[in-house]
Amino acid sequence: MGANELLAELADIGRTSSGGYSRLSWDPATMELREWFAAQAVAAGLELTEDGNGNQVAWWGQGSDALLLGSHLDSVPDGGPLDGPLGVASALAAIGRLKAEGWKPSRPIAVVNFTDEEGARFGVACLGSRLATGAIASDHALGLTDAAGHTLAEVMRARGRDPRLAGPSEWLAAAKYYVELHLEQGRWLAPHDAPVGVASAIWPHGRWRLDFCGQGNHAGATAMVDRYDPMLTYAATVLAARELALDFGQRATIGRVQVEPGSTNSIPSRITAWLDARAESEPGLDALVAGIVERAETAARDDGTTVDVRAESTTGAVDFDPQLRHRLAALLDAPVLPTGAGHDAGILAAKLPTAMLFVRNPTGISHAPQESASAEDIDAGVDALVQVVRELA
Amino acid sequence: MGANELLAELADIGRTSSGGYSRLSWDPATMELREWFAAQAVAAGLELTEDGNGNQVAWWGQGSDALLLGSHLDSVPDGGPLDGPLGVASALAAIGRLKAEGWKPSRPIAVVNFTDEEGARFGVACLGSRLATGAIASDHALGLTDAAGHTLAEVMRARGRDPRLAGPSEWLAAAKYYVELHLEQGRWLAPHDAPVGVASAIWPHGRWRLDFCGQGNHAGATAMVDRYDPMLTYAATVLAARELALDFGQRATIGRVQVEPGSTNSIPSRITAWLDARAESEPGLDALVAGIVERAETAARDDGTTVDVRAESTTGAVDFDPQLRHRLAALLDAPVLPTGAGHDAGILAAKLPTAMLFVRNPTGISHAPQESASAEDIDAGVDALVQVVRELA
Repeated sequence: MGANELLAELADIGRTSSGGYSRLSWDPATMELREWFAAQAVAAGLELTEDGNGNQVAWWGQGSDALLLGSHLDSVPDGGPLDGPLGVASALAAIGRLKAEGWKPSRPIAVVNFTDEEGARFGVACLGSRLATGAIASDHALGLTDAAGHTLAEVMRARGRDPRLAGPSEWLAAAKYYVELHLEQGRWLAPHDAPVGVASAIWPHGRWRLDFCGQGNHAGATAMVDRYDPMLTYAATVLAARELALDFGQRATIGRVQVEPGSTNSIPSRITAWLDARAESEPGLDALVAGIVERAETAARDDGTTVDVRAESTTGAVDFDPQLRHRLAALLDAPVLPTGAGHDAGILAAKLPTAMLFVRNPTGISHAPQESASAEDIDAGVDALVQVVRELA
Repeated sequence: MGANELLAELADIGRTSSGGYSRLSWDPATMELREWFAAQAVAAGLELTEDGNGNQVAWWGQGSDALLLGSHLDSVPDGGPLDGPLGVASALAAIGRLKAEGWKPSRPIAVVNFTDEEGARFGVACLGSRLATGAIASDHALGLTDAAGHTLAEVMRARGRDPRLAGPSEWLAAAKYYVELHLEQGRWLAPHDAPVGVASAIWPHGRWRLDFCGQGNHAGATAMVDRYDPMLTYAATVLAARELALDFGQRATIGRVQVEPGSTNSIPSRITAWLDARAESEPGLDALVAGIVERAETAARDDGTTVDVRAESTTGAVDFDPQLRHRLAALLDAPVLPTGAGHDAGILAAKLPTAMLFVRNPTGISHAPQESASAEDIDAGVDALVQVVRELA
C-alpha cells in the first residue's frame, strides 16, 4: 500500500468533533494505532519488537549498524492527521515497495513508532526517544504525571508494561543511521516549489512553567485598587512574550493556562501557564526567556502578585550530521532548511548520524485540524525515502 | 444553637485541599447541606417544604404575608465558609432563640435556602430565586448546561426532582417581606467600627462570554508575524478591562478562561473567557462593557483574530425598599452601605419589600478560603436579626 492508503486507514482513530485528532500516549486511540502498526509490520514480513519504553520497532533483517526509519503516531490535543503518522506510513510504504521490487538491503532496516513525541500527556516532548537514548533518566520520566495525576509508571503498568524495563535501548545504541520523514511545519518549501526538503538544524527550544499567585477575592465587592489579581500579571506576560520574540526574530507561545479557582465572579488566586520558547541560537533562547521572566517579575511587582518560573524541558540546538544531510540533499536534489519544531530526530542526533526529510505543507498549518499535504507530495516523500534507503542500506 | 455552632457543623462539607469550600448546586456537598437544613428545620419545629426549583423553605406558621429570612448554602469553587451559610445559620439561630423565649409572631415566618445563588455550575447567578420570581423563564434555565455538558433539567431529574415543576413559586408571590443577612464583601464596615450594616443598593452587574477565535498552529514552526493567536487578543482585553474599570471607578474581572486545544506546543485556536462587570449606575455599566468590547475588537483587528461577545446574565440596579431600610437602620442604629455583590435579595427586591443586613468582614476577602468574620460579630448579626423579626413579624 502507498502512504496515502495507509493514512486513510487511520482516519477515524482518535478523531475529534472539530475534525482534528487527539491521540495522547497510552490512551485508547494510541493503543489502537499501536495495534495497527503491529498488523502492518506483520503484513510486510517485518519482525515486531517493543523496547522497555513502549517504542515499537519493526525489523527487516537483524543485527547492528541498522538504518532506522520512522516517526510517531501520537498527536497534540486536536492536532492534524500528518504530524507523526506521515513519517511512519511513508516508511512502511517505502519498505513495502522495496520488498516488492525484490531489492535486498546490505544492512538491517527498522521502522520505529516512537512513543509520546508530542509530550502532550506528561509534559516532556520526545519522551520515548529521550528514554531510549538516555537523554532523560527513567526514574524522573516514570514519575511524571498526567492531567489526571497518574504517573507514567502507573499508566504503563495499566497497559501491561513493566516500568522497571524503561531506560536506554540496545537496539538504538547499535544503530548506524536514523532518517525521519515529517510533514513540514511552516511554509518554507511552498514558495520554493519543492515537494521534499532536507533539514539542516532544529532550533533550541524548551517549555517553562509559570505560576502567578495573588489573592482570590470577590469580583464585585473588591475595588480595583484593592486587588492582587494574578490574571493581570499573566496578561502582561503574554503580551511581553510576543513583543520580545518579535524583537529578536524568535518564538514565544503560551497555549496552555489553568486558572484557580476558575470562577466567573471570583478574582483568581493563581494562574499557571506554560511558555513554549524557541530561538535560532542557545544564547538567543536564554536571552528571550530571561527577558520574558524579567517582564513578568516587573508586572508582578506592579500588581502585588508573585511569579515563579521553572524549566520543564529544554532541548539544545541540533545541527544534523553535515555529511549525511549534504549526501541526501545531493541525492534528492532537494533544498535544505532549518525548523523551529522539535522531533525525535533531534534527540537521536546526539547519538548517531541523523537526517530529516520534510514534505511540503501548502498552508504551513500544523498542530491543528487543517494540517494537510497533497497526495502527490506524500507520494513524492515516499519516492525520496525509497532513494534514501537504497543509498544508505 | 447559636449561628457559630451551626456553622461549625458544616466545617467538613465540600472542603477543598486549600481549606476553602466547593459546593456547587446539586453536587454531593450541597445535597449534604440540604439534608442538614432539613434536619435543622425539623429540630426547630419548622415545617419543611421545597418548591419546584429546589428552593428549601422552612415554615413557622402558614399562610400569606409571611416574613421570609434566609440566604443560600452553595459556594463558588474554592470559596469561603460564610458567603451564604452565614445568612441561613443566623436565620435558624434567630428563630430558635425567639421560639425558646416563647415569643409568638403575628405573621408566618420562613427560612429559605435558595438554590444556586452563585451560578457556579450553570453560569447564571441567583438561579433559584430567578426561577421562583419568574425573572428567568424555566425553559431557558432548564436548558443551561454545566461544565460536563449536563442540562439543569437532567441534573434535577438525576436528583429525583421533576423539572416540569420549575417556575414561579406561590409561596414567594404571597410573601410580605424578605430580609437576607449576609457577610459583608468588602471592607466598608471595618473602619466604621460597626458589626452590622443595612444595605442601600446593589450595583448593576452582569456576566459576558467572550469568544476569541484565531488559527491554531505549531508553536515552534510558525513565525510570530504569521500568527493569528487569540491568546494575544485575550491578554490585551484583560488589561483593557482593568484600565477602563479604574478610569470610571467601576469593576471588571476575568476569573474564568478556557483555551482550545490547550496544548503547550500549539498556538491556540480559541479562547473563551467570562467577564464579570459592575458599576454604580446602569449607564456606567453599559459604558464600561461597551468600552471593553471596543478595545477587544480593536485588538482582534490588530491580531487577525475575531471576538464575539454575548451577555449571559445581567441584573439591573437594585435600590432596596427605602422605607424598610430606613426602618431597620433606625431600629438597629446601623450604618447604611451599598454593595457591588449580587444576592438573591436583589432578585426578590423586584417583587416585595426586601432588605439586607451585612455582618462586618475584617479583611474584606470573600469568594476565597480566607473569608472570615469574628464570632462576636456573627453573634451581633443574630441579635440584629432577632430585633428585625420582632419588628416585622
